[in-house]
Amino acid sequence: MAKIVECVPNFSEGRNNEVIEAIVEEVRRVEGAKLLDYSSDKSHNRTVVTIVGKPEAVTTAAFNLAKKAAELIDMSIHEGEHPRMGATDVIPFIPIADVTMAECVEMAREVGRRMGEELNIPVYLYEDAATTPQRGNLAEVRKGQYEGFFEKIKKEEWKPDFGPATMNVKAGATAVGARVPLVAYNVNLATDNIEIASAIAKKVRFLGGGLRYVKGIGVMLEERNIAQVSMNLVNYEKTAIYQAFEMVKMEAQRYGIAVIGSEVIGLVPMKSLIDCAEYYLQIEDFSMDQILEKRVAE
Amino acid sequence: MAKIVECVPNFSEGRNNEVIEAIVEEVRRVEGAKLLDYSSDKSHNRTVVTIVGKPEAVTTAAFNLAKKAAELIDMSIHEGEHPRMGATDVIPFIPIADVTMAECVEMAREVGRRMGEELNIPVYLYEDAATTPQRGNLAEVRKGQYEGFFEKIKKEEWKPDFGPATMNVKAGATAVGARVPLVAYNVNLATDNIEIASAIAKKVRFLGGGLRYVKGIGVMLEERNIAQVSMNLVNYEKTAIYQAFEMVKMEAQRYGIAVIGSEVIGLVPMKSLIDCAEYYLQIEDFSMDQILEKRVAE
Repeated sequence: MAKIVECVPNFSEGRNNEVIEAIVEEVRRVEGAKLLDYSSDKSHNRTVVTIVGKPEAVTTAAFNLAKKAAELIDMSIHEGEHPRMGATDVIPFIPIADVTMAECVEMAREVGRRMGEELNIPVYLYEDAATTPQRGNLAEVRKGQYEGFFEKIKKEEWKPDFGPATMNVKAGATAVGARVPLVAYNVNLATDNIEIASAIAKKVRFLGGGLRYVKGIGVMLEERNIAQVSMNLVNYEKTAIYQAFEMVKMEAQRYGIAVIGSEVIGLVPMKSLIDCAEYYLQIEDFSMDQILEKRVAE
Repeated sequence: MAKIVECVPNFSEGRNNEVIEAIVEEVRRVEGAKLLDYSSDKSHNRTVVTIVGKPEAVTTAAFNLAKKAAELIDMSIHEGEHPRMGATDVIPFIPIADVTMAECVEMAREVGRRMGEELNIPVYLYEDAATTPQRGNLAEVRKGQYEGFFEKIKKEEWKPDFGPATMNVKAGATAVGARVPLVAYNVNLATDNIEIASAIAKKVRFLGGGLRYVKGIGVMLEERNIAQVSMNLVNYEKTAIYQAFEMVKMEAQRYGIAVIGSEVIGLVPMKSLIDCAEYYLQIEDFSMDQILEKRVAE
């Protein structure tokens, strides 16, 4: 199968359609990069773009997008509810098929270096591309936001990985990184008691002593009058979907509550579900190369 | 996702490499048709070719292959252990992605019509493309083989669907059809008693009153000293892999035998395994369009 990488840049404009379209157009122009989706939020004043394709094409598309955003967005007059520090706020690279995390880190470094050198924007490498443990956490990197960065950037520990050690007034600063794909996965319970869903979520998630790569909360599905354990699996290769599912079932048993179903929200990597089939069917020695569609795509 | 169809022509030459290569070369020449695999069996004196790609390209490749086989193979002097009736013996079209069985039937009709008109070969449509219930079964169509067809073809019930109602002496006759992909799936047992594996296979397979689209036998894995239920799932969309697996487990229980693993042999359609993940995770409302790789390939 061809190498496929995903990139999900977030830029700080969610209201002006002309500006949004001009920035997104930069992605459409790059051959081999596919614009899978983009959605803008007016109160966040922010747009999330999903690009997939070959590493080189996606890298080019991400840089061109950031360049156009730096031209068209003025952070000194930006307001919006979502935390942000730059015109292009974050650029994560995500391995999808036949691409390693190390390659995604390289892509992040390449885009970060070019943004620093060519666009004069301070760049912080984050998550799997981070150069210090602190920078591993995007929330830590972004703390203080655009307004606070004029001071923060002067601290030795917050010297940018690329670009100038002074703030870019118009374009702000950007976090460029690499991470595994998220899987949004929910398990539905045969109860209308949200407290039970919350209690289960607490036992299953990392914070409560549960599975390492699971975040989770209890929520109420009003229209069906049932409670749900709503999870984000932040590393499905380490903590698999079936582990999350079985842990929820196990915890639900203490309340005598049945699991009545589950939901995968949005896009998921094929392997995250194939892994579950392998587990339950006790399949020995399976290779993803046995997937007919994968062979065809090669 | 792009439409993908698979075609697995079998032609009656498995010994002469020059001839085999010349015939297979016809597939390589067609743009948009991918030669996934070909393997020859000397005792069968037969070669099985696997082609995938877009419907038009695969249809062209299959016809060109049949044309070249008719040129280079002389059935009047052919011998081999495998039942056969023509230079190109069978041409099944198999829907893989975003293609319906009805479209595959159309491809079979198109290739069959051209083989009749342009190559003067009697053609029988079989399996899902069959025009009579009898022709649904390939073994029925092929009964009598090449040698017997000189008489068989004269019977009203065996009038070909396309081409002349007299045998083509050099190229023989060909069965062209449409069918779902096979999944070869084995379940390993914690026993070295092959009789138990055979007894389980009998209860699970269609012939013994089991699942409609399962064929199965017991076999011995000598190198591991364990017995195995070896199955062919001839319609994984109707009889799913997990159904076959759970039925084997259920039957194994009566002997107090555990299931220690399972194997998927060769290529499988992605959906056959995703269906299993959906079942075990009790996923509600999943769509194959949520598979990231599928969206990327679109």
